[in-house]
Formats: sequence, structure tokens, C-alpha cells
Amino acid sequence: MQSIRIGLLGSGTVGTGVIKILKENRELLQARTGVDLVLKWVADIDPRRADVLAIPREAFTTDAHQVIQDPEVDIVVEMIGGQTTAKDLILEAFSRGKPVITANKALLAEQGSTILEAAQRHGADLGYEAAIGGCMPIVKTLREALVGNRVQGMTGILNGTCNYILTKITDEGIEFNNALARAQEHGYAEADPFLDVEGHDAAHKLALLSSLAYGMALNFKDIYIEGITHITPRDIALAGQFGYRIKLLAISKREGDRVQARVHPTMIPFDNLLSNVNGTLNAVTVSGDAVGEILLHGHGAGMLPTASAVVSDIADMARNLVHGAAGRIPILAYQNQAIAQIPVMPIEELETHYYFRFAALDRPGVLSSISGVLGEEGISIQSVQQTGRKSNGSVPIVMLTHLAREANVRRALARIDRLDVVSARPVLIRIEDSDPCC
Amino acid sequence: MQSIRIGLLGSGTVGTGVIKILKENRELLQARTGVDLVLKWVADIDPRRADVLAIPREAFTTDAHQVIQDPEVDIVVEMIGGQTTAKDLILEAFSRGKPVITANKALLAEQGSTILEAAQRHGADLGYEAAIGGCMPIVKTLREALVGNRVQGMTGILNGTCNYILTKITDEGIEFNNALARAQEHGYAEADPFLDVEGHDAAHKLALLSSLAYGMALNFKDIYIEGITHITPRDIALAGQFGYRIKLLAISKREGDRVQARVHPTMIPFDNLLSNVNGTLNAVTVSGDAVGEILLHGHGAGMLPTASAVVSDIADMARNLVHGAAGRIPILAYQNQAIAQIPVMPIEELETHYYFRFAALDRPGVLSSISGVLGEEGISIQSVQQTGRKSNGSVPIVMLTHLAREANVRRALARIDRLDVVSARPVLIRIEDSDPCC
Repeated sequence: MQSIRIGLLGSGTVGTGVIKILKENRELLQARTGVDLVLKWVADIDPRRADVLAIPREAFTTDAHQVIQDPEVDIVVEMIGGQTTAKDLILEAFSRGKPVITANKALLAEQGSTILEAAQRHGADLGYEAAIGGCMPIVKTLREALVGNRVQGMTGILNGTCNYILTKITDEGIEFNNALARAQEHGYAEADPFLDVEGHDAAHKLALLSSLAYGMALNFKDIYIEGITHITPRDIALAGQFGYRIKLLAISKREGDRVQARVHPTMIPFDNLLSNVNGTLNAVTVSGDAVGEILLHGHGAGMLPTASAVVSDIADMARNLVHGAAGRIPILAYQNQAIAQIPVMPIEELETHYYFRFAALDRPGVLSSISGVLGEEGISIQSVQQTGRKSNGSVPIVMLTHLAREANVRRALARIDRLDVVSARPVLIRIEDSDPCC
Repeated sequence: MQSIRIGLLGSGTVGTGVIKILKENRELLQARTGVDLVLKWVADIDPRRADVLAIPREAFTTDAHQVIQDPEVDIVVEMIGGQTTAKDLILEAFSRGKPVITANKALLAEQGSTILEAAQRHGADLGYEAAIGGCMPIVKTLREALVGNRVQGMTGILNGTCNYILTKITDEGIEFNNALARAQEHGYAEADPFLDVEGHDAAHKLALLSSLAYGMALNFKDIYIEGITHITPRDIALAGQFGYRIKLLAISKREGDRVQARVHPTMIPFDNLLSNVNGTLNAVTVSGDAVGEILLHGHGAGMLPTASAVVSDIADMARNLVHGAAGRIPILAYQNQAIAQIPVMPIEELETHYYFRFAALDRPGVLSSISGVLGEEGISIQSVQQTGRKSNGSVPIVMLTHLAREANVRRALARIDRLDVVSARPVLIRIEDSDPCC
């Protein structure tokens, strides 16, 4: 049986999972691929990892370059993370014509063009199924299964930390900070949760998904990003009264010559399948002109689910190496010359439904002042609720709008914020009423 | 740009969808695959199809053999169905070393070994993504994405006709026959609905999925199959009172050296994602030792969703042809020598929870007679409900059991059926309480 030798750089959580699967399911992988996937090297800057992971001395090094430079290593798996060392190592592997597998969404989303250009110059494959949605095969689905579809849109719950926090706030009525602390206790949130709770991690993934779906050049910087730190149990409870749950959604839609790409807390109806995706789970729906809509759902993070995706990429590349079929699937789903600069629509041009919550003094004429401003900005109200309890001398006024334009909404809220009768910054949450799945 | 020429046999619903996608998304497919996928031939026994589908005369024939024998045809797509002509044509294509794509689950499930042996002998690929779950990429997911996973089980809603009928009965309280008539009116059920409503279509798919998941030789004949023709609005309403919905599930589980494989109406809790898969939609969950559980959801039938899966297979094979990589993925997910005869567990050995409904005379001692038999057969009751209205002089007694063994259940129900106080055949519906997803 032919052997394919793997060099693993980094033995953190996901790296450890990869070691575990390659070891425990080695015979299974042989039975399926017809190839012996041999873990030739594990590199880690921490020399104690060899003992912790029971890796033989001769298969362990603190020098990642040694792994890449070993002519026997066929596939390089980068599990270091970050955008400096990881990038250099990936480029070094490509320069030797070796295929690379990574879960590094930040690097790919923010510096993907450098990486892709190097891969193409050296005719090497790049696998990154593990970068998006953990074990859900969304990259494979977009690159291969939906190849005959003009993708119209995608909606995803792509960050397990945020979904866990929002689920906790929903189920227990606790504040964001408490829910974040719980997530950290359970290891579902990093000590520095910025990338997750501010929506950047989901946006990194959305940048990759959008390129895969529409054949657009990677564009992270134009994605509109809004995190969940301002979401309160009160807004979640009020959303529930209107039949909605609040999820951090990554949304992209093809709109003529442009693409919508945005990450923000979103109200979706109870009967939308995504509203029932709870805890650390991820899900994504894709709509295409042939399939209609499909949904994938599973663990978006965690040692083994993410490692499962890495091993899937390892097997794919091993099969390509055995058959001399490198480049069989283009890295970003489209042939290089077919990838276009498709602009992202500015968020100000978005038209959607909105939820507003105003804190207003309990005084006659308040509703008229607020709705007057909305009317002047061309925003029409679908329903108003003014039954909440007084809090700090103010009453909450909640409004759901008909389709409105974001630019007008922003102008209106800025004007309302300046009204004397309004005692706190207005809250805005976007609504997706169109059921993204089925 | 390299051309790959396709010969399509059969231009029914799915065949028409394939023609449409290849035509309308030809440039998109070029941009993705780097190959021009050319529909060289359409064969149909009905010569009028050429005009109906606006196919040029020189690309249409009533002779499928002519298509297969054309040396320019690279890929043969069999969309004829049935187990006679279709089989002969597939074998003829293989004998010329040509890869074949089919959606013919009945043929594969019942005569798969002949087909597979021929494919292997001639080194030709076989694609059948469209045979299971329409557009859901479940074959690709099992063969490729989950390659590193020891699959533990799968639960699927795999027949859209049955799911539509059960949804209608649930939502409108109508009888099976009326719901079937509605399905037929909408084109969701065949004039002869036997294969669908008796569960055979779902079992065909389950046979394929089980082979893909566990590396077992195809075994359709040992699958336990029970259809939905006996499901009544009364049982659906009673299930609802206990917090369950009734779905036709295809279930397979790895159990030591054997596999459970069964298709039957099943009660699942409301909070199971599958319980919210309604209408003609399909869904399947797969649990594996690394991924935990993942779920795919989408249109399981219909012209374009099914054709989307066919086109995905066409692209995969075109890529293999361009790269000389035929056989890159083994047809049944495992290398031939790794496929084992894994026995299917007889249904009598199943242990699960059960729902029983008895029609009994409204008389003292009835409950004691029934529960006495159950106790003697070692079946313990979790809850009893005896509040229904009288119907034809009988009252309904509904029971939910703790874990019980099917053999004992069958013996007990046969004994209870013979009791004087019981006026109709007892109803049995199996319950799956373990949430198959997440």
C-alpha cells in the first residue's frame, strides 16, 4: 500500500485531534483511501508536547522548517494560527510544491490573495474545509456538490461562541457579560473574545464562502460587521413576543453585479430552521438556482469535529497525489481567470425590515415625535408596542418597520437620539423575514 | 478548453433538468471546472422528445446503444430507470470503459453487486449522488467529507412522498387516502405509489447509505420495511399529545459486528430537528466518532434539485477524466477488498420504546388484562392514557413503553389481539427518543 507522509505544524487543540484521528482510525482510512496516511512529523515550539501527546522523539521537532524541508513529507498541515509565522510556513511549503491544509480563516480572509497566488505559481493544492463551520462540509459542498448552481445567497450561523452566548441569554435571561463568562468557563470562548463576539471570525468565514459561491476575489475589508456585545435579554424577550429569535448571522446575497455581505445580530422567525440552531452549533443554508435551498448543520468547532474536516482534506490531497491530480479542484472553486472583482454593496444601501427600541420619557406626544421623524425619512412602521415596564423613568417603545433603507434608518435614528424625550441610544436590530431555508 | 462529451439516456423529469442545467449554466460550469461539458447526445424511446426539448436532430436518437457506442462520448448518464434496460445499458457503458452516472436507487440497491463488479472490472467510475436525497450531497459527504470517521449511525427522512403525506395528515387531520390523493394531484406521488408509501424507496436508499457508511456489502433484502399506509390522524394527534411527531424514518446503526437497518413510521420528539422537516423535504443526520452529528437538509426530489446532483457527478467525472484519475474515490466509499459481509440485525432483536394503541371495550378489568400480558412478556409501561372518546363502542387505550424487545412486543400484541375485550388490531409505532441530531 502506498504511503503518504504528513507533516503537522502545531499541536494545539485541532492539531491534537488530527493526531488522534490519524492514529485511531488509521486502518479505517486505509480501507477507504487505499493509502497509508503516515504522520511523519509533529512540530511544536513547546518541546513538552512530544511527551504530552506520546509522540516518538524521532517524529517530533520544534523546528517547523525541518518538517517542510524533509523531502519525504508529502502534505503540510498548518495548525499554528496567526498571520505571521503561519503565513511564512505555508509559503515555504508551496515553494517546495507541497500541498497545504489549514484552518486559518483569518489568514485566508485577510491575506488570501498572497497565499493563493503562491499556491497557483507552484501548482500546489490548498485545503481549508476546517476553516469554516468545523465538520460541516461547506467548502466541499460549494466547490463540488453545487458546481452546477448559480448561488443566489447564503445565511450562516458560523460562530459557536456567539451562538452559545445568545442561546444562554435567550434561555436564562442573563446579561451578555454573564453569558460570556459562562462561555469562557466552558472553554467556548477565548480569554480575549474580541474576534468572536465582535463578529470578525464570522466575517472571515463569510469572505471565504462568498468567494467560493460567486467567483469573487476575496474581500474581507468591505464586509459589514456588527457583533453581539450590545444584545440584551430585554431585546431578546421582545423579539420573542413578535415571533423572532436573535442570532448572529453571516448573510451574503448575490444582487445583480454586486454582493451583499454582512454579519450582524438578526431577528429570524421561529419557523426558520436556523432559529432552532442552538448552543455552540453552526449551520448554513445555501440557495442556488437548481437546488433551491439546502442546509448543513453540525459542530462548528471543537477538537474532533474540526480535525475531521482536516482529515477529509488530507484524504482528498492524498488521493490527488496518488493519481497525479493536483489542481483537480480550483482552490476558490473557480478557475483563476474566471475570478472577478465583484463589489460588496455598502450597508447604507441595504433594504430590509428593522426592529427599533427607544427609551422615551413617559409623556404625551413622544410617539408622535418619533414616528414623525421616521415618516420624514420614508420609514413606515409595521407595528408598535409600548407596553413595557418603566425603567429609569423611561418606557420602551418598540417598532417593527416595513422594508426600509439602511441609510434612512441611520439618519432617522441619529435624529431621534437627539430628541429631548429620548433618554438612551436607540437600539436597531435587522430582521430577515424571508425564510432562508425552505 | 478541453471538452468532455456527455451522452444522456432518458429525457424524463430528471433528464430534462440535466439538459437545462448543462445548457443554462454552461459558462458557469466552464468557469468552475475549466472543462466544456458538452451534451453530445440525448436518447429517448419517444422521438417526439427532440422537439419538446428543442434538441437538434443530430444530437437526438431513439437508440441508446448508438450513444454508448459513439467513441466521442466520454460519460454516460442513465436516466431511464427500471431494472432491465437501464442495467443492460450501464453494463454496456462499463464494457467500453465509460463512467456512468445514475439516479437509479432500486437498481443499485437490488442488483448493485453486478453493477459494481462490472465497473471495477473495466476501471470505470459510477456516480449516484442523485439516487439518495436529491440535491443533498450525502454520498459525497459519506464518501469524502467523513472519510476519517467511524460512522455510528444515520437517521433519514428520505422519501418526500411519505413526508408530504404525513405532513398533510398532521396539519389537516385528513386520512391517509385523502393525503395520498393530494400528493398525486400535486405530482408528489406516482400513479402507482407502492414503492414510496410502502417504504421500499427509502429502504433502497438506506441500503446504499449503510454500505457507504460501514463498508458493508449491499444488502437490501434484510432491511426491515414498514410503510405509512396504516398511519391515522388519530395516532398522529395522540403522538402530538405526548410531544412527538410521526415521520417515516430510515434508520441504521452500527451495533458491534452487526448493523441495524430499518424503515418504519417513527415517533420523534418535537425538539428533534427532523421533526420539523416537513412537506416533500428530505433530511439526514449522520453520527461519527469525530464529527459528533451533522445534518443535511434539502429537496429530496424534483427536476432541478435532482439534476443538480447529477451535474455534480458529471463535473467530478470530467475532472477525473481530465486528470486521468478514474477510481480516485471507490464507488462504495471503501476499497473493494475492505468491503465485508456485515449482517443486518433481525428486527425481532430491536430494543426501543414503543407506542401502542388498543381499541378495548369500556369495561372494568380491561386495562388489567392488557397490562398483565405486557408484564408477562417483560414489557414495562412508561405511561398510559385512557381518556379518548368512544368510537364504535370501544375506547382507545394508549401506552408508551420503557425500552422493550421487539420479539416480546410482537408476542404480547398477538396475545392481546386475541383477548375478548379487544375489538381491533393493536397499533404499534416505534419511538426514537435519542435525539439523532445534537
